[in-house]
Amino acid sequence: MLWKKFRGHVASPAGFCGSATHAGIKKSGALDLALIYCEGAEATAAGIFTTNRSAAAPVLLSRRHLVRSGGRARAIVVNSGNANACTGKAGMQIAEESAGVAAELLGIPRQQVLVASTGVIGKLMNPSQITHQLPALVASLSGANAHPVARAIMTTDAFPKVCALRGEMEGRRVHLVGIAKGAGMIHPRMATMLSFITTDVAVPAPDLKMMLSAAASDSFNRISVDGDRSTNDTVIVLSSGLSGIAACSGTLNGKALEAGLLEVCQSLARMIVKDGEGATKLVRIEVTGAKTQADADRASRAIANSPLVKTALSGGDPNWGRIVCAVGYSGARFDPRKVDVRVNSLFLCRNGIHSGFDETAAQKQFSKREFTLQVDLHQGKAAAHMWTCDFTGEYVRINASRS
Amino acid sequence: MLWKKFRGHVASPAGFCGSATHAGIKKSGALDLALIYCEGAEATAAGIFTTNRSAAAPVLLSRRHLVRSGGRARAIVVNSGNANACTGKAGMQIAEESAGVAAELLGIPRQQVLVASTGVIGKLMNPSQITHQLPALVASLSGANAHPVARAIMTTDAFPKVCALRGEMEGRRVHLVGIAKGAGMIHPRMATMLSFITTDVAVPAPDLKMMLSAAASDSFNRISVDGDRSTNDTVIVLSSGLSGIAACSGTLNGKALEAGLLEVCQSLARMIVKDGEGATKLVRIEVTGAKTQADADRASRAIANSPLVKTALSGGDPNWGRIVCAVGYSGARFDPRKVDVRVNSLFLCRNGIHSGFDETAAQKQFSKREFTLQVDLHQGKAAAHMWTCDFTGEYVRINASRS
Repeated sequence: MLWKKFRGHVASPAGFCGSATHAGIKKSGALDLALIYCEGAEATAAGIFTTNRSAAAPVLLSRRHLVRSGGRARAIVVNSGNANACTGKAGMQIAEESAGVAAELLGIPRQQVLVASTGVIGKLMNPSQITHQLPALVASLSGANAHPVARAIMTTDAFPKVCALRGEMEGRRVHLVGIAKGAGMIHPRMATMLSFITTDVAVPAPDLKMMLSAAASDSFNRISVDGDRSTNDTVIVLSSGLSGIAACSGTLNGKALEAGLLEVCQSLARMIVKDGEGATKLVRIEVTGAKTQADADRASRAIANSPLVKTALSGGDPNWGRIVCAVGYSGARFDPRKVDVRVNSLFLCRNGIHSGFDETAAQKQFSKREFTLQVDLHQGKAAAHMWTCDFTGEYVRINASRS
Repeated sequence: MLWKKFRGHVASPAGFCGSATHAGIKKSGALDLALIYCEGAEATAAGIFTTNRSAAAPVLLSRRHLVRSGGRARAIVVNSGNANACTGKAGMQIAEESAGVAAELLGIPRQQVLVASTGVIGKLMNPSQITHQLPALVASLSGANAHPVARAIMTTDAFPKVCALRGEMEGRRVHLVGIAKGAGMIHPRMATMLSFITTDVAVPAPDLKMMLSAAASDSFNRISVDGDRSTNDTVIVLSSGLSGIAACSGTLNGKALEAGLLEVCQSLARMIVKDGEGATKLVRIEVTGAKTQADADRASRAIANSPLVKTALSGGDPNWGRIVCAVGYSGARFDPRKVDVRVNSLFLCRNGIHSGFDETAAQKQFSKREFTLQVDLHQGKAAAHMWTCDFTGEYVRINASRS
């Protein structure tokens, strides 16, 4: 089967609805609170959370709920403007209260409510900002609200991130819809971000977990904006099963769903990098010819995270020396006398030295909004890629301002 | 014994002289080539070099010369404006030719000439730019040239970095003089930098190596500007022995020399961070109460290298949440509910949550040109520190411009 992207009006997968409002957490008056709900069924659920030891209260609570419910969840309460991180017991109480009130209003077990937050770290929220708005959010749930919900989870994001796919399995229409927020602090190994994905294909919770892990490791875990990892990273997928189609790992349907999930995750991940704070360029880093997968990963991550490479990208400077330098300190094993570096198809460096390329031609490639840097180590057959963006004065301006 | 810093006119340690010139490598017309020479004796020598696998030709050659000579060296030829890195065989020939011509002019074995370069990566130098200037450099050698030599090794540095100490051992005057260049690409574990240190205390080569390693690990390896490690990092110490005083490891004199060497290295390291590209602030990061030394190191490095912490520093924002977040992803073991964070003596975070500090008072500390951030993990007794600087729009401007 082939998944098709649909733009414009996004129909939620069967059973799912959402709503968004301004709860007063963001001073700007923008949307800052959203509810995602699976109306018609007890959805299966899987989540991936930050590996940061200072994980925020909503991360700790959602993890716990997913374990206790055995991978079942029907609602997600998410706010922007405050991360509810580094907030101790009081922060945990706020997260619990949000889940509790939502569960009561929806008439579902509180363990089936997941929570997520993004925004400023270390400031206590007023819990009533969330709880007072929940009745209105429940009342306004609709299957046509993917875009408002995507806007409500934005922080420094310049645009909402939505990816909606539809396909056919066994003659029936099936759906996959994902939203995400990212911008600053984006990093490999669970990039600092939120993403919520829903589908009406029926997937057992353990299979859903495996599929999500595989998709995330090849998408959200391959992007870099500034090398930091946040306290709040969360990716959750919910499956209502209401299409009547089941997909387990290892089956044809399972493989088709995996492909769709990967497409949603990669599409959202690219949008996150493209929208990196202050970023003007989206650059794919490809490392090939590595001795091992670990070497390929290390080299591609070092390039994608190097501030010197990222500032060169912002200046449109074909400074391949900084790329070879980053590979040099990455820990990847290679022979510097054998490295090739290309921008798109143009060789910058061959066998570790200047290829004799034309400076103007190279600058033309570097001035594009999207391009690929390819590094061939000529040591073996392993390969890895990363998506990165440029590092601009605007990034500094955004992050230097007091929040 | 007590070492005393002397400013203004710097007298080289007995036996050492230097000279500097403009060889045309820098387009600006600034000094870009220097010679350091030990006139009266076959000096013992020790070096620490970059761990980058793409190490530049001069690094490879100097390493080889130090091994072959058994830790003896009498001259250093150093240029700025071109790193002679990623330049393959042709680059190695340039490094060898520079050392060869200097050796011939000075009448010493070529293995006793070390070379170092800093500047643009991946561009071939014209070797005659160096070799044609060497006779004039030899002719103008003088014991009073520490400052011109320090200027000749600068790249984006805003000021030359010199630290000169004098002390007394056994009633005789002894000297330690160090110069350094740094600015961009400064990183722990052999920060991207050059430093050359000379002394007239006699130290056997193996002892000199140990003393230098110890001093570097507590100075140059504890600074961070942008997290990159260069292809050219080099620290060399030469000991003429012409004071007539000997200092071996483990002796009283040895300990005194170690203390002086550490003082020189720390002083130069601080100057390098202070002069970080675009930097306006010098910040000491102290992590205490870690379970192990490795945990303390990881935590302090993660904070010092975090772009989000560094942009908060530039904005004067007491954003302790970003500090706790960096510790969280550092890999250090700790309980987020027990962390304290202080700026100077003011608590920002206590037991993992907002201390209730006064925002204006905290901003006042963060707006100073130098301050200390102290993180107590309350897990054990290990401690580590780092020096870092803020990340400004000016850093991006400097590094985004085509070189």
